[in-house]
Amino acid sequence: MSGPPPPARAADLESADRRLRKLAEAAGAEEVPAPALIPRATLERAGYPEAFPHLLFAVAAVADPAAEEGLLEPGNLASPGWCLSPAACYHVYPRLAGESVHRPRVFTVRGRCFRNEAGEVPGVRLREFEMREVVVLGPGEVEVERLLAGLARRLTSLAARAGITGGWEPAEDPFFLPRSAAKALMQQLLETKQELRVGAGERYALASVNHHGTHLCERFGITAPGGGPAASGCLAIGLERWVTAAREAEERR
Amino acid sequence: MSGPPPPARAADLESADRRLRKLAEAAGAEEVPAPALIPRATLERAGYPEAFPHLLFAVAAVADPAAEEGLLEPGNLASPGWCLSPAACYHVYPRLAGESVHRPRVFTVRGRCFRNEAGEVPGVRLREFEMREVVVLGPGEVEVERLLAGLARRLTSLAARAGITGGWEPAEDPFFLPRSAAKALMQQLLETKQELRVGAGERYALASVNHHGTHLCERFGITAPGGGPAASGCLAIGLERWVTAAREAEERR
Repeated sequence: MSGPPPPARAADLESADRRLRKLAEAAGAEEVPAPALIPRATLERAGYPEAFPHLLFAVAAVADPAAEEGLLEPGNLASPGWCLSPAACYHVYPRLAGESVHRPRVFTVRGRCFRNEAGEVPGVRLREFEMREVVVLGPGEVEVERLLAGLARRLTSLAARAGITGGWEPAEDPFFLPRSAAKALMQQLLETKQELRVGAGERYALASVNHHGTHLCERFGITAPGGGPAASGCLAIGLERWVTAAREAEERR
Repeated sequence: MSGPPPPARAADLESADRRLRKLAEAAGAEEVPAPALIPRATLERAGYPEAFPHLLFAVAAVADPAAEEGLLEPGNLASPGWCLSPAACYHVYPRLAGESVHRPRVFTVRGRCFRNEAGEVPGVRLREFEMREVVVLGPGEVEVERLLAGLARRLTSLAARAGITGGWEPAEDPFFLPRSAAKALMQQLLETKQELRVGAGERYALASVNHHGTHLCERFGITAPGGGPAASGCLAIGLERWVTAAREAEERR
């Protein structure tokens, strides 16, 4: 190793994303825009604050702009109407809220994401980073899982062609533990997330496949033709991590 | 008019930015990265919260993630360590803090910016938008102003080639009025900002030239060879507005 890597250049992130966007487009994905700001109500509907309160950033305006003291302190902040997007896929679900999904639908989204990480690791663990996601929704879980498995295989091949090798493993997400409601959610999610771990010692996840079952569709009122909730899942790839992994692969050659 | 324009597509913003980046590169600009998150301390050093408290968004983590009530309410937010960047140029000054500027230096930055606008106008006035800036610093104000004037002329030509016409006018920024310290700053800034107003009735500013004099360099300890503060200014172009103006020009043809 020769010191921490410099921040990824915009051109390198764009180049990495171009390949990943093609992978999504080949699966018929429709592009969805992803602002950094996301309504707090959207994340609450998804159940995110219960599961990951420690990672969330709230965005608040100043309550009294004429305050002479503590202008930017919590006592003078308005009730936050927005949060910073912790993942790009949360921009997809509100677009389909209340709709019925008759056949599998694929969306893709590139988003600036934010997490209140205790420590940053340059190029790997950042408070602000970019993510490309492919989100699959459909009437049944089996079809959604089959589509995601195909996407994950193609991603593994795409990474290998850039010299990036690793293995898929069950994920261990740093869920926030105390709350009982969150705990149940956690169990469910823990069993259903796989990560592609890469780098020396497979020390970081380049991508993850998340099977949400009917959980998120239920919360957003997205139904299958029978009337029950539709199923969903996503493939998420960290763009800075892709750039780091590709650079490391280059250095090994 | 045929209804509000759809959100600008990433590809259109990229295409607009490519031209503006070339304009900056032709002036020898060095590219600087611009995260959405900016340390609160940086904006305080620049004097932004005093002048524009009503536009600022603070970013706060949750103080007690185990709180059973009001998890995301101000009473449970930590003291904000970050804000959302209200302009891209504030990422440039900290990089030069404490340095001496012996000759004019030009930087350019593309940044996601955020302002707590009371009302949004699609494609024109947004809470979250993108900005390309060219920032000029130098030992003396005359040289900085000369360089900025040249950049503004080339921008006017570039816009005209895309069918976008308009006129440069003194700006009327919505400063927050009550505070006396901010008031002095305001006066200073009001006289030194010019906007390129475009669109039907020249109703919005596509770009602005801001002469900061020695104000920002003084605050960041950036000096001229004589020991006094260096001078600075910037040219800022709104990317969504460029896309909107180019579309309107296309429709008029």
